[in-house]
Amino acid sequence: MPAPAEFLKFIDDNASKFVARLGAAVAIPSVSGDGSHRPDVFKMSAWLDGQLKDLGVTTKLVDLGEHKMDGQTLPLPPAILGRIGDDPKKKTVLIYGHYDVQPASKSDGWDTEPFTLVVDEKTGRLIGRGSTDDKGPIMGWLNVLEAHKALGRELPVNLRFCFEGMEESGSEGLDDLIKSESAKGKDGWFDGVDCVCISDNYWLNTTTPCLTYGLRGLVYFKLTVSGPARDLHSGGFGRMVHEPMTDLIQVMSKLVAPDGTILVPGVDDLVSVADAEEREIYEKLDYSVQDVEDAVGAPITISNDKATVIMGRMRMPSLSLHGIEGAFYGPGAKTVIPASVSGKFSIRLVPPQTPELIEPLVFAYVEQEFAKLNSKTKLKIENLHGGKPWVADHKHWNYEAASRATEAVYGRLPDLTREGGSIPVTLTFAESLGVNVLLLPMGRGDDGAHSTNEKLDRANFIEGSKLLGTYLYEVGAVKA
Amino acid sequence: MPAPAEFLKFIDDNASKFVARLGAAVAIPSVSGDGSHRPDVFKMSAWLDGQLKDLGVTTKLVDLGEHKMDGQTLPLPPAILGRIGDDPKKKTVLIYGHYDVQPASKSDGWDTEPFTLVVDEKTGRLIGRGSTDDKGPIMGWLNVLEAHKALGRELPVNLRFCFEGMEESGSEGLDDLIKSESAKGKDGWFDGVDCVCISDNYWLNTTTPCLTYGLRGLVYFKLTVSGPARDLHSGGFGRMVHEPMTDLIQVMSKLVAPDGTILVPGVDDLVSVADAEEREIYEKLDYSVQDVEDAVGAPITISNDKATVIMGRMRMPSLSLHGIEGAFYGPGAKTVIPASVSGKFSIRLVPPQTPELIEPLVFAYVEQEFAKLNSKTKLKIENLHGGKPWVADHKHWNYEAASRATEAVYGRLPDLTREGGSIPVTLTFAESLGVNVLLLPMGRGDDGAHSTNEKLDRANFIEGSKLLGTYLYEVGAVKA
Repeated sequence: MPAPAEFLKFIDDNASKFVARLGAAVAIPSVSGDGSHRPDVFKMSAWLDGQLKDLGVTTKLVDLGEHKMDGQTLPLPPAILGRIGDDPKKKTVLIYGHYDVQPASKSDGWDTEPFTLVVDEKTGRLIGRGSTDDKGPIMGWLNVLEAHKALGRELPVNLRFCFEGMEESGSEGLDDLIKSESAKGKDGWFDGVDCVCISDNYWLNTTTPCLTYGLRGLVYFKLTVSGPARDLHSGGFGRMVHEPMTDLIQVMSKLVAPDGTILVPGVDDLVSVADAEEREIYEKLDYSVQDVEDAVGAPITISNDKATVIMGRMRMPSLSLHGIEGAFYGPGAKTVIPASVSGKFSIRLVPPQTPELIEPLVFAYVEQEFAKLNSKTKLKIENLHGGKPWVADHKHWNYEAASRATEAVYGRLPDLTREGGSIPVTLTFAESLGVNVLLLPMGRGDDGAHSTNEKLDRANFIEGSKLLGTYLYEVGAVKA
Repeated sequence: MPAPAEFLKFIDDNASKFVARLGAAVAIPSVSGDGSHRPDVFKMSAWLDGQLKDLGVTTKLVDLGEHKMDGQTLPLPPAILGRIGDDPKKKTVLIYGHYDVQPASKSDGWDTEPFTLVVDEKTGRLIGRGSTDDKGPIMGWLNVLEAHKALGRELPVNLRFCFEGMEESGSEGLDDLIKSESAKGKDGWFDGVDCVCISDNYWLNTTTPCLTYGLRGLVYFKLTVSGPARDLHSGGFGRMVHEPMTDLIQVMSKLVAPDGTILVPGVDDLVSVADAEEREIYEKLDYSVQDVEDAVGAPITISNDKATVIMGRMRMPSLSLHGIEGAFYGPGAKTVIPASVSGKFSIRLVPPQTPELIEPLVFAYVEQEFAKLNSKTKLKIENLHGGKPWVADHKHWNYEAASRATEAVYGRLPDLTREGGSIPVTLTFAESLGVNVLLLPMGRGDDGAHSTNEKLDRANFIEGSKLLGTYLYEVGAVKA
């Protein structure tokens, strides 16, 4: 069942208004990973809750308690549960999104203020932190709701919402909520849910829509080496004392090779080697080495072989070194011996890897490599957070509905992909509700979700809003 | 000739006022290494110039031109030249100091606001950025001038001053000024200078005054590895592309071993191995492994042998990794692949090493190690600044005068030391003027000059002001 023409027209006619709403959302710097922004995350929850209520959604803000971050005890931002529609004859779709964002500051290299949505008329880009990850998609759902309210049309399905404010910082508290709500059955907010739709990932390239049926897991580590009681002057103490930076860099250099091979024994070994048949799946995707180069803006792929590069994201684990906390990071030249430095790195996981399997491998190896240094500095290794990888049945009616909707809006069938990122909640929904979970991306592969100059193309925002609505009509038409 | 009793009494009687003046100096955040603070460096120059003029010093602010820092063209803060006294029968002493400071922010781990001088009545510490490096010593000279002005006493020597505002950032422009003023002879500001006194280093420990006759040189490198056009999300691109952090960490790990051995071939080899006789000199110094542990607040010396540890600072080169610019440095967990990262490291040099000898060794080695990685990222290595090491004749009358002054004020003869830090201007004065240069420290070994919670003990500030004045009387009494 295609979406009604008046719905599609309403989205087009109200595009400017929808962009303005996205701008209002981006303007709230709801950075969950920085304690000083916690009030902004709460502000964002209140703003979103207000929008949902205005559009007829019954909501509940669920207090998820508090947590410790960087020595502070902070209140967790609430989960927003919502429901609209209770027709037992209709399918019930659960929508997930997150209203928190990654850190961003102009000094990171942004061309514009990250928390001011800039509409670049020339390129059609909507630039700002959260534009594509994940405020744009959430606004997409609001756009669908607004269209139906304004047109006086009933939604083709019952909707349930679950929006969180800690996705970028490990989704603390959410798993327990989803499990307990799921276990409540008829008394829970997720009663009767037939499928889940999450719009929090991206097309492979900049032109081909896709549906995503797999995600890598993640385990994030903080590796701290401590020495003196305070920072020292390298002139005064260089070559008198063991330096934490020297030791940390030694250990960090043992984690991953320049070609991406993970050097922690046992980690890569858990994953099977792709055979010729499997390689062919990746060879066929509408994605090329050139697409990757275009997306990252430089010819730096780890291989010139298409399948190898794509499998690097879709079916291989990866280890990235993100940075060092506590060392000199500014411009200029500071001759400091930092007292305590923390290397941050994470490993993206694919089946059958899990955080529980990987953590002991990393801990043992890091401790062993540190011991080899014979240093008097102290080592501490922490697992900050993690999530298992996930793979879904892409022949389920939920995927077929999304495939038809994509064809209706974009005029072509979507690629079926597995994604390199982690949305741990995906697995929680799949396991707790026992229903099919679909990842239906709105943005393009070059959106730069966790990067500087994050953007969502205006076309993807508007056509993507149509896609979300059309998907609901296709689900509504599925035979029970 | 001992200093007059009324001078010493004046210093004691006006101690609170002197501490307040140091507080006013610390309150100006004259950070030369951060372009955003450049106006504060200028403010500091104007403040110091005003103080000198009030105390009867004829001054000239010398424009040193401009320089490029982090992509900006910035005006260099002026050198302040000063003169007071022109008696041909007196010796003429040239005083050097620097009015700029290292970067500091509370978030680095300071217990107090770094640019507010905190007087800790319990410990007697004066805590603030620049308290000991190098505003305290400059204030010491102002205290001496003020005492003589207030008491209506003539100074026992002619004084010349040279204060700069770029010491913490390579002393840009100063060398040329010193060389040209020195070359002017009778028309220059340094005409007739008999010796130089610099107070910009520290006692070895917390109890024994010292005179310093040697300094290590420095060469500071910035090692940049660049890959994608912008930061990437590790989920989206991990194991698809070469990551600059991976490659940078690999190269940085090849520079120095945990025990301090410099791994760049040829660097350590330039320095002779100490024989038994030379080791004995270091064995005899009033300094112990325990003193080092106390100064740094942890048992992390690279050896348990006293001479090895002391030689590590005084007669061996050292290589320290200071940090990384461009990577994730905040608290929390950010899953970024940084686009371009710059490792900062420096090598402290001892004779016969010079920046000119070391730079090609480092460049060649870094390029060779990077080439081994077989990565498509790009490498750039820069020499940000440097200075040669310096050793003076410690049997010169300038040192003997300072030795007698130390005995008069502190009741004990000073240790004779070589220092691990770099004050490149020392060598410039020695070479340009052809006179003896003395380093006469005011602060203690645990002051934390470039560190968090930098401090100067009130006792060192006050007794140190007496020492500077007494030194002038001892120089004044030296036979021509």
